[in-house]
Amino acid sequence: MDLHGGNIYRLKREGKEDILDYSSNINPLGIPESFKEAVMENFSNVEKYPDPEYVALRTAIGEYNEIPMENVIVGNGATEILFLYMKSLNIKKAMIVAPTFAEYERALKVAGKEVEFFQLREEENFTLNIERLLNEIKDCDLVVLCNPNNPTGQFISLEKIDELSKELEKLDKKLFIDEAFIEFIKNWENKTAKLLKRKNIFILRALTKFFAMPGIRLGYGLTYDKNILETMKRKREPWSVNTFAELAGIIMLNDNEYILKTEAWINEEKEWFFQELNKIENIKVFKSESNFILVKLLNEKANIFRKKMIEENILVRDCSNFVFLNDSFIRLAIKDREKNKRVIEKIEKVVR
Amino acid sequence: MDLHGGNIYRLKREGKEDILDYSSNINPLGIPESFKEAVMENFSNVEKYPDPEYVALRTAIGEYNEIPMENVIVGNGATEILFLYMKSLNIKKAMIVAPTFAEYERALKVAGKEVEFFQLREEENFTLNIERLLNEIKDCDLVVLCNPNNPTGQFISLEKIDELSKELEKLDKKLFIDEAFIEFIKNWENKTAKLLKRKNIFILRALTKFFAMPGIRLGYGLTYDKNILETMKRKREPWSVNTFAELAGIIMLNDNEYILKTEAWINEEKEWFFQELNKIENIKVFKSESNFILVKLLNEKANIFRKKMIEENILVRDCSNFVFLNDSFIRLAIKDREKNKRVIEKIEKVVR
Repeated sequence: MDLHGGNIYRLKREGKEDILDYSSNINPLGIPESFKEAVMENFSNVEKYPDPEYVALRTAIGEYNEIPMENVIVGNGATEILFLYMKSLNIKKAMIVAPTFAEYERALKVAGKEVEFFQLREEENFTLNIERLLNEIKDCDLVVLCNPNNPTGQFISLEKIDELSKELEKLDKKLFIDEAFIEFIKNWENKTAKLLKRKNIFILRALTKFFAMPGIRLGYGLTYDKNILETMKRKREPWSVNTFAELAGIIMLNDNEYILKTEAWINEEKEWFFQELNKIENIKVFKSESNFILVKLLNEKANIFRKKMIEENILVRDCSNFVFLNDSFIRLAIKDREKNKRVIEKIEKVVR
Repeated sequence: MDLHGGNIYRLKREGKEDILDYSSNINPLGIPESFKEAVMENFSNVEKYPDPEYVALRTAIGEYNEIPMENVIVGNGATEILFLYMKSLNIKKAMIVAPTFAEYERALKVAGKEVEFFQLREEENFTLNIERLLNEIKDCDLVVLCNPNNPTGQFISLEKIDELSKELEKLDKKLFIDEAFIEFIKNWENKTAKLLKRKNIFILRALTKFFAMPGIRLGYGLTYDKNILETMKRKREPWSVNTFAELAGIIMLNDNEYILKTEAWINEEKEWFFQELNKIENIKVFKSESNFILVKLLNEKANIFRKKMIEENILVRDCSNFVFLNDSFIRLAIKDREKNKRVIEKIEKVVR
């Protein structure tokens, strides 16, 4: 298992204290002040068990997403919801749209399901070809995709998701969509698959990326599929969401100032960083709609490039272990202008 | 599923704001100040993913328990470790020593294992009869017990655990011991099953009870069984312990002042509360070695008694849904002198 976040701790244990972590895709604005204040004010809450039904938290998530709280399930990070969903499915085989986040495969395998991969092609800029997918799906009962996709940054439009989920519905198949990064998409509220209200869709979300707090562990699922929610509730472990994560959801989803500031940053920076990277020779940059960018190295291996960048005090994600990517690919987070400039400089130096 | 902690939220939603919760067994001293300070100082840690290997945390737990950190596995509350252990076992059937905490059965069933119960008898004061257990064990490959046991408060001596685990080892069977409450036992360091270093033993611990923070979600397992640890690591979800829980473990296990204060409180209060309860007519009180007391009502049903106590603004645990207990049993937490006095008064009033 190659976990992002793991490398940075290993590097620190090896003495690399001040490394700039471009391997993990976290909002550089940092945790909202509103959350810190809420923790201070409500600190003694940890002396009680969390509400096992998480009514206040699910209500806040429901309001944020304009969906009844009955359709919301919360978990200890998106990973708990992912593993629980896969465990709760009564299917034999799933198809993962790849290259993508490796945990889908692991969650399916831990749950005893078979896995096939559907290949997004580099020559199609890693866009999803629905017709080809439907041709290849055969005995797979579930399609798993990440939207926008990690690590390609590609976003599938609501129209295409509508078409795909409708076709899957006819075939009595399900669609699992990881929308962990969707809030980095402009006007995402009008583009989320939740709007389709289709029963065969399950949506995974996280507070990790957008609200800059991977340490707090809060994820949730949205679905109109009552049956799967029932099964998931029956199989889940009690009190899996800790008190601070509960508080984070209630407070931060209402912090409009932070949300607006983040949107202003990402809309500007994703364009600027792409344009600047695109000027560098010997690399190919893939246009991203999320807060990270996939880069193909044209004259260097990813592991060598990563090592050279560590010497420059920058950690990038070597993507060679993603299914269907080879040792030419790396992924960069998008951070603030000053840091992005530093990364551009160092990449220019290293790939020259 | 009947979860303690759940009732209190339901009662609050129904308008019972100031109810005294004697249904959940949490250290009344509250969270240590040292932890609150550590959270403030390290707040920005939540902007990073936790260390997926949790080296610092496992080291702290190892030092606290005088066991190498390689023998420590950490989880999102004791529940994650419990469910993960049961999922990782390659067995068909387990025997649960009961009455006891209901989640063992649920964890085993979610993992697809069969369950049998071994009955602790009221006429034996719910003590464990090892000879009878070994006679009944037959095709069960695992014995599950809680020590000290919830809700009976009975503690099994290290000598008896040694004898039991040795016999089970001969039969190639395992022993799972939940020691969530062991720190409330006087000189527990000399009485924990960890001292036996036997490979067929797995010990579950929690920071919930002793350190008064069920909201923080931190549990751990101790074992010399390398194989089960390997399987558990392979099946676990990444980053399941959040940043604050990680911090709590590192800080609080070293807070000797808090530990000593808690020991002084529980040693005095468990004796006093038992003596006072014992003076009340129409109830039978079971001597407890933990921070809660099992009570048998001699002229009242548990659900009626519970309702009457809620009217007196005290919530007790109705134990009628514990396997092998009937509707005569309730459980009381032990809190500070002032509150314990109030509870004594109200019980006297209600059972008169």
